[in-house]
Amino acid sequence: MSSRPTVLLAMEPALLPGLLDAQALARLNHLADVVPGLILHGPAGPSDAGAPGRSAALAGAEVLFASWGCPPLDEELLAAAPRLQALVYAAGSVKGIVTESSRRRGVQVSTAAWANALPVAEYTVAAVLFANKQILAVREEFRRVRGTHDWRGQLGHIGNYRRTIGIVGASRIGRRVIELLHPYDLDLVVHDPFLAPAEAADLGVRGVELDELCAVSDVVSLHAPHLPATEGMIDARRLALMRDGATLINTARGALVDTPALSAELVSGRLNAVIDTIDPDLLPADSPLYDLPNLLLTPHIAGSFGNETRRLGDAALDELARYAAGLPFAHPLADDRLDRIA
Amino acid sequence: MSSRPTVLLAMEPALLPGLLDAQALARLNHLADVVPGLILHGPAGPSDAGAPGRSAALAGAEVLFASWGCPPLDEELLAAAPRLQALVYAAGSVKGIVTESSRRRGVQVSTAAWANALPVAEYTVAAVLFANKQILAVREEFRRVRGTHDWRGQLGHIGNYRRTIGIVGASRIGRRVIELLHPYDLDLVVHDPFLAPAEAADLGVRGVELDELCAVSDVVSLHAPHLPATEGMIDARRLALMRDGATLINTARGALVDTPALSAELVSGRLNAVIDTIDPDLLPADSPLYDLPNLLLTPHIAGSFGNETRRLGDAALDELARYAAGLPFAHPLADDRLDRIA
Repeated sequence: MSSRPTVLLAMEPALLPGLLDAQALARLNHLADVVPGLILHGPAGPSDAGAPGRSAALAGAEVLFASWGCPPLDEELLAAAPRLQALVYAAGSVKGIVTESSRRRGVQVSTAAWANALPVAEYTVAAVLFANKQILAVREEFRRVRGTHDWRGQLGHIGNYRRTIGIVGASRIGRRVIELLHPYDLDLVVHDPFLAPAEAADLGVRGVELDELCAVSDVVSLHAPHLPATEGMIDARRLALMRDGATLINTARGALVDTPALSAELVSGRLNAVIDTIDPDLLPADSPLYDLPNLLLTPHIAGSFGNETRRLGDAALDELARYAAGLPFAHPLADDRLDRIA
Repeated sequence: MSSRPTVLLAMEPALLPGLLDAQALARLNHLADVVPGLILHGPAGPSDAGAPGRSAALAGAEVLFASWGCPPLDEELLAAAPRLQALVYAAGSVKGIVTESSRRRGVQVSTAAWANALPVAEYTVAAVLFANKQILAVREEFRRVRGTHDWRGQLGHIGNYRRTIGIVGASRIGRRVIELLHPYDLDLVVHDPFLAPAEAADLGVRGVELDELCAVSDVVSLHAPHLPATEGMIDARRLALMRDGATLINTARGALVDTPALSAELVSGRLNAVIDTIDPDLLPADSPLYDLPNLLLTPHIAGSFGNETRRLGDAALDELARYAAGLPFAHPLADDRLDRIA
């Protein structure tokens, strides 16, 4: 293993400045020989296929410093990159990039999924606290009232004391949400088919079935992967189990929720929601969901966004430094969990 | 000291159900003999002055179980309550209730200010996380765009990674905000004239002058008391020091901020704000502040509200239990700090 690996960048080129600021770029160039003039990318959006120098770049690459837009490590790419040893991934899920072939070839993979989990968990914490206190509804009501009002009389039901928060999925993000919510006076229940009772106790939470979670929670927050077993798991029946005035938070995957059923509960005003990801990805422009006062709808920004992508770049550089020093990755991809993660 | 003290309730009567639910009321009646038929209150709003049984109730009272609306412990009240030993206060500031006379008489005071600090700190944490990520602005923009958009291109400046948060006032609330923000990748600076550098280091923060705090912070959050020295401390000059796009959070006292100067910065769109308390207390109905997209304006609800008042009742019951057991209060009022606290 070389102490100065040859690194090829592999991502949507427009992402690079967000991942690495000037200081981080200098660190990258200090740690490695970066192949100049080419950023590997595709297949979504414009691809580098046929770009001059692509073959030479791949032929020399020992490490891919990658993020969203990195092409899959398929047979063609692996054949063109005989020296490839490692993928350092500065983003969340490597599904669709890591392949059976790359595993067989023994390409080591480091993931920044832990770092990508942080902003989602942080967004969730803020959403939980706002939901219990009904901050956005109170703001709208204050805009309507515009004066003195018996707020204590009207708002006796709000507050963050001893609410029940239902976490669906003890994933990396779900566990971080649990950690971050521990200092608050909230009761946490968790549903995860892979979470053993002893593990739940270690996390300081109570494991429950999904139906019970929906029925007892003031806030239901989704942190499960999109798998055949989870698709549509929050359907009309489970939404109906939720308490009047409860809030559904979805920062995970839109396909976990039956969108028409949720829409009906939101339009009627019975439930509230914080939705960062929805199925289909793009609502029609005339969807009533954009304007509902009881829905906080955002365009998939809960994950690493803005300066948060710099955390991914910094995390990947830390891993590259370990690789260059001959150390194992601090955050290697656990292959055996690929079928369960997002 | 009796093991079953005679307790007189002293608060705005409408508050009682919010402080004590059925279980808590049962606990109160288990711990103490509660004077029936009278709740001491005044002088704001309707008072109990002249209520039948008032003299007998005061004559027998050993402990006041009190909250907002408790009358001041003035000479008249103290003269009428010769057995009074203690005030257990299920609310925040006891300023205006505790008097020189009650201190001379040796009336012990327990305060739930610590419990009242929690919801304010929690509201602040949520507001900080939302402000850095510009969640509400993104929601409004999504409502306008209603479709695909280059969000990464437009929102490169948002995010919760390595932002600087300026905490004005290492008060009970300010310190709780610091604790709650520790698990995040945020840099905290604090201004408090009473905070020694070593104490700041213990808190894991850097103490700075107020001008520097305003200039370096992405979010400035006020947790100082309203005193002559703090009135109008956030004036036009200090607002002008704040960065373009920075956010001011005021959950403390409206009088800390020059409202016209803040209004100008908000109407121009240069700054953002989260304002739960404003001077004057009531804005005119035609104030533009109600409707500004870059201002989250709420009617003084950051403190204990809704179910959060039950925490105050539970805290006061814990103190009453200690008193009945002959133990000192866990949260006694520190008389020497009365001139510095809210």
